[in-house]
Amino acid sequence: MLTRDDCLKLDAADPLAGRRELFDLPQGVIYLDGNSLGALPRNVPDRLQAAVAQEWGGDLIKSWNTADWIGLPARVGARIAPLIGAAAGEVIAADSTSVNLFKLAAGAMKLRPGRKVIVTEPGNFPTDLYILQGLRDFLGEVELRVVEPASLQAALDEDVALLLLTHVHYKTGAVHDMAALTARAHEVGALALWDLSHSAGALAVDLNGCGADLAVGCGYKYLNGGPGAPAFLFIANRLQTTFQTPLTGWMGHAAPFAFSDDYAPAPGVLRGLCGTPSVLALTGLEAALEAFDGVDMGQLRAKSMRLGDLFLDLALERCQGFGLGCPRAAARRGSQVALTHESGYAIMQALIARGVIGDFRAPDVLRFGFTPLYVRYVDVWDAVDILSDIMASGEWRQARFHEVSAVT
Amino acid sequence: MLTRDDCLKLDAADPLAGRRELFDLPQGVIYLDGNSLGALPRNVPDRLQAAVAQEWGGDLIKSWNTADWIGLPARVGARIAPLIGAAAGEVIAADSTSVNLFKLAAGAMKLRPGRKVIVTEPGNFPTDLYILQGLRDFLGEVELRVVEPASLQAALDEDVALLLLTHVHYKTGAVHDMAALTARAHEVGALALWDLSHSAGALAVDLNGCGADLAVGCGYKYLNGGPGAPAFLFIANRLQTTFQTPLTGWMGHAAPFAFSDDYAPAPGVLRGLCGTPSVLALTGLEAALEAFDGVDMGQLRAKSMRLGDLFLDLALERCQGFGLGCPRAAARRGSQVALTHESGYAIMQALIARGVIGDFRAPDVLRFGFTPLYVRYVDVWDAVDILSDIMASGEWRQARFHEVSAVT
Repeated sequence: MLTRDDCLKLDAADPLAGRRELFDLPQGVIYLDGNSLGALPRNVPDRLQAAVAQEWGGDLIKSWNTADWIGLPARVGARIAPLIGAAAGEVIAADSTSVNLFKLAAGAMKLRPGRKVIVTEPGNFPTDLYILQGLRDFLGEVELRVVEPASLQAALDEDVALLLLTHVHYKTGAVHDMAALTARAHEVGALALWDLSHSAGALAVDLNGCGADLAVGCGYKYLNGGPGAPAFLFIANRLQTTFQTPLTGWMGHAAPFAFSDDYAPAPGVLRGLCGTPSVLALTGLEAALEAFDGVDMGQLRAKSMRLGDLFLDLALERCQGFGLGCPRAAARRGSQVALTHESGYAIMQALIARGVIGDFRAPDVLRFGFTPLYVRYVDVWDAVDILSDIMASGEWRQARFHEVSAVT
Repeated sequence: MLTRDDCLKLDAADPLAGRRELFDLPQGVIYLDGNSLGALPRNVPDRLQAAVAQEWGGDLIKSWNTADWIGLPARVGARIAPLIGAAAGEVIAADSTSVNLFKLAAGAMKLRPGRKVIVTEPGNFPTDLYILQGLRDFLGEVELRVVEPASLQAALDEDVALLLLTHVHYKTGAVHDMAALTARAHEVGALALWDLSHSAGALAVDLNGCGADLAVGCGYKYLNGGPGAPAFLFIANRLQTTFQTPLTGWMGHAAPFAFSDDYAPAPGVLRGLCGTPSVLALTGLEAALEAFDGVDMGQLRAKSMRLGDLFLDLALERCQGFGLGCPRAAARRGSQVALTHESGYAIMQALIARGVIGDFRAPDVLRFGFTPLYVRYVDVWDAVDILSDIMASGEWRQARFHEVSAVT
């Protein structure tokens, strides 16, 4: 079993250790919830302040040109692209993950006329399921085939227009085999849409290596773009001339400032834009992404796996009464782990009271995320030490840890 | 003809004059483009900074509860509601105007099954037309009846599901008779959806007084929420139990944090939410709306009309060669005026070079907007004085004023 000193040595040898200085982390907190909301990058406040005071306040409407506000969606997309195995012209930042899911799922159905089926899994992140249900109820001609992960390959047949999966499961952290499932989807003539919300910025995602067709993802988890930051979407180059979203807003027009009466999609991935994007939100995300400059995603993924393994090794050794809520093998997990405990909610509240921030997902899951850019090996050691202490002392049994809050 | 001193006296007597101090306006600029991008309210930078540093940086994920991030869309909606004649529970801030148009137009079609027609006007703001075209191409069963304003009443018959109009025309500033057109739509059993992008915050809009069913609007024009600020949407109370958007994201779910597999719409207008909203963008808009605290919208509208009349009186008297691109009667105009001139682009560039910021819309329209919260009567006088000088000197004929930029 590793000691705390061993963990300090791992940190000293960590090629990513210096990245932690790029973040403004609160004192006395071990933050293991970057999979829900990424921490604040230090460069964001000044960049936002400059955008507010100079670009908005000082230059006003001229900033659409002079500060290239109009280029923000593509510019931010080009920064995200290398993190997910995409080309720069295949990604834009825009809207929310949910809205982007609708754009791409709806667009996919139009690319596969005559096919009615969308395949996904039960327990997928709710918004993925809800957006598909909304699409089905709206179009009428859509059938949702919701099957357990083990049956996904078999569920893909020639009635299927689209396979939509979240690459890393939000609760269990389980990773789908993107390459194999995409290949099987293509064998039957279907398209594959990947939700990268829990993988972009944490895994070495390789969309083009896997032949993925479409993807969406979240800007405020591992990309650290701030609460509710704009999401992103990916349209593979080969689909960009035929893809069409029903959300045909003016910013996705070929010539938005021609103010013509008739819609004509912009060339390339820009056709995935809809309305006017939030310049301030995009500016925050753009600045945040600089923390990835020069990062080797393979190295980042290796650290992510090692942090998760360390947590599980220590926690399962030192703490009694927990079940495993995630795959044990690091390669089959995202950058998060899950423990189960029937008093999971109270235990998580007790941890938070001691400065260890993870989160709880009903009915019994304690989730801990490891953002390799700012979580240290020693943080993992200390977090488990506190968990161990809480379990040994029974302090989580106090009544105040049993209140339920709205967002946990 | 009024003199500059007369204008200074009008400002001295203006009950809204003190509001200008709430905005951080650049020196040497007369800003007549608040109809495109509102100026920076002074309280926004500190509020944003606090949201970034304390709520995000310091309290991290806890802020969904402790800073009530989760309540932002309804809280901001409740601030907008009194400006547009709506009840607090009828408005939320969310997404973009374009996305909200899709939600509401699509939802309206489902509320009028068996009817295929949507009525609107040519030359409507492009995104309104584009979104309807996207909806039609997507659903197949939709017919767009695009008719000139004079024919709108006649175009409303019992095939019509929805009338969608922009209340104040983005280019001409012409105001539709919301009460009469809504009443006619209801006579034939259709719903009325109003785009308030160029009226919210500038006119005394009375959605409920007019019986309007649905509305959307922009957060970054007269509401001053910052570039690309979140938009808003209105669903009349009587429709809230039956209205359903196809954009069924998790934030519009009755219990988003139950993470259930099945969508169930939230009660009330919250069902109009889709994905996770930008907390930073909403925070900016929320702060900006405080500039309206205690403002009598009738008084604001009276000033708006007077500013527009003053501009037209002075400009048409002092400057030769301009046509009128907007209604002459203030009551039929929004808070903007339009002049036409075949060299409009170059003249606007020359004005901007002299610190008078309006904008240009092809082929020949010079647009000037008057935000009553921060534009003074003397600003109007000075702007026309500069315009008059530019026309007399011919300085707009210089080559550098003839370059065309992307966003004008």
